[in-house]
Amino acid sequence: MQRRSFLKKAGLGAVAGTATLAAPAIAQDNPKISWKMTSSYGPSLPPLFSTAQMFVKMIEEATGGNFSIRLYPGGEIVPAFEVMDAVGDGTVECGQTASYYYYGKDPAFCFDTAVPFGLNARQMFSWMYEGDGTKLMRELFAPRNIVPFAFGNTGTQMGGWYRKEIKTPDDLKGLKMRTAGFAGEVLARMGVIPQQVPPGDIYPSLEKGTLDAVEFVGPVDDEALGLQKVAKYYYTPGWWEGSAQVSMYVNDKAFNDLPKQYQSLIETACRAAGPNLIAKYDAHNAAALRRLIASGAELKRFSPEVMEASFKASNELYKEFCEKDEMFKKIHDNYMAFRDEVVPWFGVAEGFYDRYLEHAVKNLT
Amino acid sequence: MQRRSFLKKAGLGAVAGTATLAAPAIAQDNPKISWKMTSSYGPSLPPLFSTAQMFVKMIEEATGGNFSIRLYPGGEIVPAFEVMDAVGDGTVECGQTASYYYYGKDPAFCFDTAVPFGLNARQMFSWMYEGDGTKLMRELFAPRNIVPFAFGNTGTQMGGWYRKEIKTPDDLKGLKMRTAGFAGEVLARMGVIPQQVPPGDIYPSLEKGTLDAVEFVGPVDDEALGLQKVAKYYYTPGWWEGSAQVSMYVNDKAFNDLPKQYQSLIETACRAAGPNLIAKYDAHNAAALRRLIASGAELKRFSPEVMEASFKASNELYKEFCEKDEMFKKIHDNYMAFRDEVVPWFGVAEGFYDRYLEHAVKNLT
Repeated sequence: MQRRSFLKKAGLGAVAGTATLAAPAIAQDNPKISWKMTSSYGPSLPPLFSTAQMFVKMIEEATGGNFSIRLYPGGEIVPAFEVMDAVGDGTVECGQTASYYYYGKDPAFCFDTAVPFGLNARQMFSWMYEGDGTKLMRELFAPRNIVPFAFGNTGTQMGGWYRKEIKTPDDLKGLKMRTAGFAGEVLARMGVIPQQVPPGDIYPSLEKGTLDAVEFVGPVDDEALGLQKVAKYYYTPGWWEGSAQVSMYVNDKAFNDLPKQYQSLIETACRAAGPNLIAKYDAHNAAALRRLIASGAELKRFSPEVMEASFKASNELYKEFCEKDEMFKKIHDNYMAFRDEVVPWFGVAEGFYDRYLEHAVKNLT
Repeated sequence: MQRRSFLKKAGLGAVAGTATLAAPAIAQDNPKISWKMTSSYGPSLPPLFSTAQMFVKMIEEATGGNFSIRLYPGGEIVPAFEVMDAVGDGTVECGQTASYYYYGKDPAFCFDTAVPFGLNARQMFSWMYEGDGTKLMRELFAPRNIVPFAFGNTGTQMGGWYRKEIKTPDDLKGLKMRTAGFAGEVLARMGVIPQQVPPGDIYPSLEKGTLDAVEFVGPVDDEALGLQKVAKYYYTPGWWEGSAQVSMYVNDKAFNDLPKQYQSLIETACRAAGPNLIAKYDAHNAAALRRLIASGAELKRFSPEVMEASFKASNELYKEFCEKDEMFKKIHDNYMAFRDEVVPWFGVAEGFYDRYLEHAVKNLT
């Protein structure tokens, strides 16, 4: 029997083992507590925002409303991409975000979301819960006063929208592309000129030609932007986001002040609500893609030369970062060892089965 | 804002909408309740049994021990494959099992676990939570007095262990194989002689030749059986289990008698603990497979002819069952429409990315 504490197993041991913890748990197990939660997203991105709503609902229902969390869309009380600071300084107790938005503070945060040629969604989930992922992320985020929790995944994202075809690595040179973070840095090595453009300005920028390309998410979220009208080549895959994990940040003091049963419930609700995200994308991306193609998108695959050049540029950058930064190297080595360990298995049963199913379904329809 | 109740969304509306519900919730929100839980599994199958342990722990921790569930391994108070009856008649309040064990009662139960050429793990999860899966399973199980919950997935299973090579469909003829349920019926059409053999008798039966082949799970669980010594050909994939969902059964009266907050917590804890299962398999199957190969297993892929013949035989059986049974047809049509809708998307970004990663990692190692 392996009756290890699941909190301990999930890497919470270090956080929970402080003197502040026991007191409120003894005083009252089920106290009235109200938290504020901010998000990098809002109702315009239904899979992402509904996951945050589900989390809040789960916590409230399980405590009979005693632990209530008020959810604010991005920009309402905290700017969309400032969740890290707002949670770290206690402006809000928790927040939904993606850690690679904070690449500028520390490139290692990307391992909490997505890195080029990184883990797919199931592999990422497995690294977080069965590998060392959660433990390493807790260590990385501790100086920011944040306890991070895995909070769902988008699956493999698309490679973005392009005004012209990308046949060889040379076609990337001089391309003004909306991208950022780690992907932006790799693409810059390949000649791309990364641009930061808020979502609302993407369409007009492509239309005017101040942008040549845009990477966003995948069919469900991309459809709302209508980019097929101004940049019809829709490339796959987003090799910089073989999967993208979303995170729940919890302020460490707020977390440590909770009674143990609420701490456990937060962990449980993150594990429970997170998968809602990929369930939604997996159910609805196919139809969204079909509609995009019907309204003018041309689906394209990056060529083997583009993929190889991207893989090479990514590995060069990993090497440089590892040489500069010990913590980056520690996480990188663990993450990549996990990848190289598990990836071959995925081709044995899953990959072979998936390919057969794809072939069989095509023959049926 | 989509603030629909997540309980309602998950298909619990029908169950919860009974007169018995409100009373205990008003009397006391957080009452002391003790349940018994049985399982089809035990500590000899760590990924499966640890998922049940995690569920119990989550419930207990989130209620400060007020809602406690005592977990019994298969065979201790209820025989391993009689969970359905034990939960339905209230011998235990809940149980961990796989619905395809009850194929003999009704073949439609297989849609709750795995059917030949069915959904992969992510697709199954998406059908349950974002498609009509949970709603249809609740309808199917209602006459058994059971509320079923999705409780994790094994991923694509292996095609089993064989004493001789299977090159063409003809090689299956006359094969005495440990298999059962839907897979057994399809394989029987192809000439296999299905056998029911308890796990403890598998090895000696293969050794003596009273069995020619065995399908079990995948590397992690298969390793413990040591079958490579007596049936060295290890085939992929288990096309009858492109993924296999495990279920939590809850007795409907016991569920309806719970206060609303405990009902919600059960749903949340099933969603949270379930994914533990696949995280474990995904992390450890690669190493287990490597050890199996090192100790004599020969990894083989079913040939295109075998796959095609299996697909054809499966579709024939689906057709017959649909003609005989309206509820089977209703679920089949919904499930297969979901499959045929989402499968093509999986090849676009996920499949392409996975294949590249496999190629890249092979080049690295």
